[in-house]
Amino acid sequence: MLTKRERTRLAILDTSAALASEHGLESLSIGGLATKTGMSKSGLFAHFGSKEELQLATIDHAAAIFGREVIVRGRSAPRGVARIWALLDGFLDYIEREVFAGGCFFATTSSEFQDRPGPVRDRIGEQIGRWRSYLERAVEQAQELGELDPELDPRRIAFELNAFVQSAKSQHVFFGDARVFSDARAAVRDRLESLRAQEPLAV
Amino acid sequence: MLTKRERTRLAILDTSAALASEHGLESLSIGGLATKTGMSKSGLFAHFGSKEELQLATIDHAAAIFGREVIVRGRSAPRGVARIWALLDGFLDYIEREVFAGGCFFATTSSEFQDRPGPVRDRIGEQIGRWRSYLERAVEQAQELGELDPELDPRRIAFELNAFVQSAKSQHVFFGDARVFSDARAAVRDRLESLRAQEPLAV
Repeated sequence: MLTKRERTRLAILDTSAALASEHGLESLSIGGLATKTGMSKSGLFAHFGSKEELQLATIDHAAAIFGREVIVRGRSAPRGVARIWALLDGFLDYIEREVFAGGCFFATTSSEFQDRPGPVRDRIGEQIGRWRSYLERAVEQAQELGELDPELDPRRIAFELNAFVQSAKSQHVFFGDARVFSDARAAVRDRLESLRAQEPLAV
Repeated sequence: MLTKRERTRLAILDTSAALASEHGLESLSIGGLATKTGMSKSGLFAHFGSKEELQLATIDHAAAIFGREVIVRGRSAPRGVARIWALLDGFLDYIEREVFAGGCFFATTSSEFQDRPGPVRDRIGEQIGRWRSYLERAVEQAQELGELDPELDPRRIAFELNAFVQSAKSQHVFFGDARVFSDARAAVRDRLESLRAQEPLAV
């Protein structure tokens, strides 16, 4: 059970993550958020002591939303090809449902902080890296189970599969063309089928 | 032979395209460009009557640079798989050489104008669309020549191949990880090989 303070904090972060996915993390200000949430500035300062603290908490909150919507769904599927599919299909579904109105939180903010070294950029990189590691680990598990060819570099396979999803995302955000989702699902499916281990493991 | 006026215009656009690829098209101002190029504001106004005119000319200039660096190189290769490879390898090479210091002109500006309808957003979309059509046409040619399976949807193949390059680009810009280029080249090569027509056409 969350305390009132925790619930308030989460409500602020829902607002700041939505704003940042549309206008970037630099657009966040304690004053602007106070107007948007109907709270006092001093009330907001009690939760986040500085703009940077608010930005870092917003990044972690966006990652938690992604985790709840995509990773949890992937983890509920059996290990192996089924889990890889559940992760990527879930990611595409998450983009289609437009969980973040402004497109993709991490696309917007990584482009924004590309040339601004510091703790905010580092945190964005860490959270993107966590997704990539998770996908790579899922590929390794499918290899260990004998479902995918064990000779292949799991990092490279994860790169390819992730590329289809990321590309669908950016094309959808800019062009609003829904065909990219079926393109991406077909690409992931074909690639996974072409990577099947040649000889099934002896049972 | 270019006139002095045309040379001046191109020099201004080189500067504005470099600035926009790093800081976005909204960062362009006649005043700021005057400082950067050492020209007078009135001299700049003689070339571009408004900020929007400057933004549109900058987009076309960035597309012309891409055309010169990537499309011309692709067009010099024989039609078919050789041309598809030359286009994608050339695009990767263009990113590696960091022709635009700020990363990718079209990634920065399409993210910036994602939610701002109008002529600037339309022009960005047109130029991105031209690249996609060009790649798709190259795939169709390879199918017509019997080099790639004619049963496949050229739009989908172009989507997949382009995804590898776009993903390498965004990962390179943010993480500076050079392995993504060899990942992307290997992915393009494997995909092209898996798409070879099953039976060569009778000659």
